[in-house]
Amino acid sequence: MREVFHQSLDEVQSRLVEISELVADAIDKATQAFAGSDVTLADEVITNDRRIDELAVELDELAIEILARQQPVARDLRTVVTALRVSASLERMGDMAEHIAQLARYRFPERAIPKGLKTTFTKMGELDVDIARKLTDLLRTQDLRLADVIRNDDDLVDELHATVFEKVLSENWKGEAGATVDATLASRYHERFADHAVSVAKKVVYLATGDWAADTDAIVTQP
Amino acid sequence: MREVFHQSLDEVQSRLVEISELVADAIDKATQAFAGSDVTLADEVITNDRRIDELAVELDELAIEILARQQPVARDLRTVVTALRVSASLERMGDMAEHIAQLARYRFPERAIPKGLKTTFTKMGELDVDIARKLTDLLRTQDLRLADVIRNDDDLVDELHATVFEKVLSENWKGEAGATVDATLASRYHERFADHAVSVAKKVVYLATGDWAADTDAIVTQP
Repeated sequence: MREVFHQSLDEVQSRLVEISELVADAIDKATQAFAGSDVTLADEVITNDRRIDELAVELDELAIEILARQQPVARDLRTVVTALRVSASLERMGDMAEHIAQLARYRFPERAIPKGLKTTFTKMGELDVDIARKLTDLLRTQDLRLADVIRNDDDLVDELHATVFEKVLSENWKGEAGATVDATLASRYHERFADHAVSVAKKVVYLATGDWAADTDAIVTQP
Repeated sequence: MREVFHQSLDEVQSRLVEISELVADAIDKATQAFAGSDVTLADEVITNDRRIDELAVELDELAIEILARQQPVARDLRTVVTALRVSASLERMGDMAEHIAQLARYRFPERAIPKGLKTTFTKMGELDVDIARKLTDLLRTQDLRLADVIRNDDDLVDELHATVFEKVLSENWKGEAGATVDATLASRYHERFADHAVSVAKKVVYLATGDWAADTDAIVTQP
């Protein structure tokens, strides 16, 4: 029984890593599609998001089955409850990647990135991909130093997000309303993607260090 | 022991209702602040959001304590896990109300609602408030018919959300970039607020009808 249980907990962890890998691929392709107006790549991201959603549902089912059948306590219980919360955040990260892909798709054959913001969005996209890859490593290795790196990268994304609004609201901005809408939404999706990653990283840290009840998205989204 | 347990489950439910009431008050005040450029009301919403966040954390702690100490099974287990998920959605709804209040605050003393969109945003705001009140009733009474009403109202919010983009992207739109940004973000926050409510309503329905594993935000956010 004990052995079966630990197999289940290992299974929970490996499924989280699997979902996180798919999310990293999704944001990689979504940001490429967005930068290069690649509608095929955008469609791929949109289609693949269903798989992420399914895997998140299946992981939740597994977690609840473990709660019901094995009634874990202490750290094992925390692991299972954390998995439920992490899967919800990973699923939302997949949605953000999908939204970015949809922006590329809607504007096709025109470019989705408004003029004057190409460098900014390229950097934001690279940071998001980097964050997603580090998050996968964090989930796989539990190397908590990665959580700090992710948080620093998120600060950079927040700075770029602020830059987008500065540019759009400056007198030099010549974009039409459509470009302004795209810039606003795209910037928000890039920023939210990184926020969710920080939220996951915090959950992993709190699980490891024990001070886990204090972590919620509530805290993360507070200034 | 049995009696203590049922007291705890009742406590979980009454705390969800309490948080939902605060969220309904928050969106009511936020939409008023947004429509009337009322910075005092906006500040109140922003300050009160901390309380919603705290209550959500406390509810999560209670739910996890119940899992650890009482090891519920079957429907009781589903109730506790659903509470964890619902509290996360309610907390996000509070965040959306806060974001709307922040838009009112940033633009003060100017109006946050861009010209030509007052009627649309007033309707969206009224629908969001209505949805939040109905959600509180649903959580209190478990009257599942309310879930259908909430879903219908959400469809109306989605239509208004589409209207905002139609107007902003039409040739008649005279708003400057700042107005376009505000309209885009405000519309998105109003729409997400209603989405989260539908997500909660679905969880309550699935809990009552038993087909609960199929529900996740993943499904809700799929087209």
